[in-house]
Amino acid sequence: MKIPVNTISRLSIYLRTLEDLENEGVHTVSSSQLAEFSGLNPAQVRKDLAYFGQFGKRGTGYRVTSLIASLKKVLGIDKKHNMILVGAGNLGSALISYPGFKKKGFIICSVFDNDPLKIGKVIGGLKIKHISTINSFLKKTNVKIAIITTPQTPAQDIANVLVKGGIRAILNFATASLSVPRGISVNNVDVCAELELLSYFVASKKVFLNRNASCG
Amino acid sequence: MKIPVNTISRLSIYLRTLEDLENEGVHTVSSSQLAEFSGLNPAQVRKDLAYFGQFGKRGTGYRVTSLIASLKKVLGIDKKHNMILVGAGNLGSALISYPGFKKKGFIICSVFDNDPLKIGKVIGGLKIKHISTINSFLKKTNVKIAIITTPQTPAQDIANVLVKGGIRAILNFATASLSVPRGISVNNVDVCAELELLSYFVASKKVFLNRNASCG
Repeated sequence: MKIPVNTISRLSIYLRTLEDLENEGVHTVSSSQLAEFSGLNPAQVRKDLAYFGQFGKRGTGYRVTSLIASLKKVLGIDKKHNMILVGAGNLGSALISYPGFKKKGFIICSVFDNDPLKIGKVIGGLKIKHISTINSFLKKTNVKIAIITTPQTPAQDIANVLVKGGIRAILNFATASLSVPRGISVNNVDVCAELELLSYFVASKKVFLNRNASCG
Repeated sequence: MKIPVNTISRLSIYLRTLEDLENEGVHTVSSSQLAEFSGLNPAQVRKDLAYFGQFGKRGTGYRVTSLIASLKKVLGIDKKHNMILVGAGNLGSALISYPGFKKKGFIICSVFDNDPLKIGKVIGGLKIKHISTINSFLKKTNVKIAIITTPQTPAQDIANVLVKGGIRAILNFATASLSVPRGISVNNVDVCAELELLSYFVASKKVFLNRNASCG
């Protein structure tokens, strides 16, 4: 059974909502409430969750804590993920310093760049290493996720090195369409494209948008 | 006729591909080629472009330069957009310094924060102003797009101020689900959710992902 990517993306939204509810001391939630608080419709919530089994009981709704645990397991975030980041520019540095990652179990454990002036400098407690050492670093570790925050030109070469080193998933901020072998996941984040989407809605004047970037 | 958000998002991808082709001196492109270079399928390309009229001629394909101009017009990026940014932290600073925006006609013209230590400092040629001055700034200008890069807590209050000041579209990086009146567009970029999506594909081991974050 093929699960739509947008369904997976919405699991993250449900998870945020459920964590907020848990923090507020709420124990159970109906699909209608979960939908309302998530800004989505109840049928969608039920359909999305049904892909992964029977979470709620008819009439009593979902148990918040156990649904959180289930969704974390589905998303593979019931354990921590070590990640490397390549490209210690402004955006890379901002991501390294972003406290939200660690809270969610995403740990940037090493940073690489090719600028001789940056090598050896420390950001967020991490010493910047030369990209030529990526491969030997990956051999010693079990890192599966990498973030690319380089300019467009070197991004494909970097991706090749990452894949060769055993990286299975790349979050790509470079405005380059990466070619990777089958079996490697790439998620491109293009902030300009997100602005262009908004521009469309500003220009059209008739329609408007309210959505998470990752769930159309 | 309602045009799917994913279609609009893909226009940005086609535009990138077409601009690359134009730089390489290519004059015409078939829907199959445009699809291949964009990493999408030809039927999708034809369907997406058909929403906006008849761009290509049967047998000769699309004229690159004129399709670029048409897509820019559809996306409302045939003219420049002035934007304001609220939240001059690490991510905000990275976005202000990002040269890609200016190239695409997205100009950050003013920056706001509430931290007394930041007010008056200059980033990317812009003096950081206090958020209490957002409203009077917006009254004097015709800015329609705002970027929020604040933490979660103040994001909703900031959004209220922006909407009151006439902002029509918000690119929201805060991990907060913003409530806005009908007619205002919000596009949420949640980098943790993008990582969770990758985590799912790493954990599942059977399936994989290759996509732009905004076109599932």
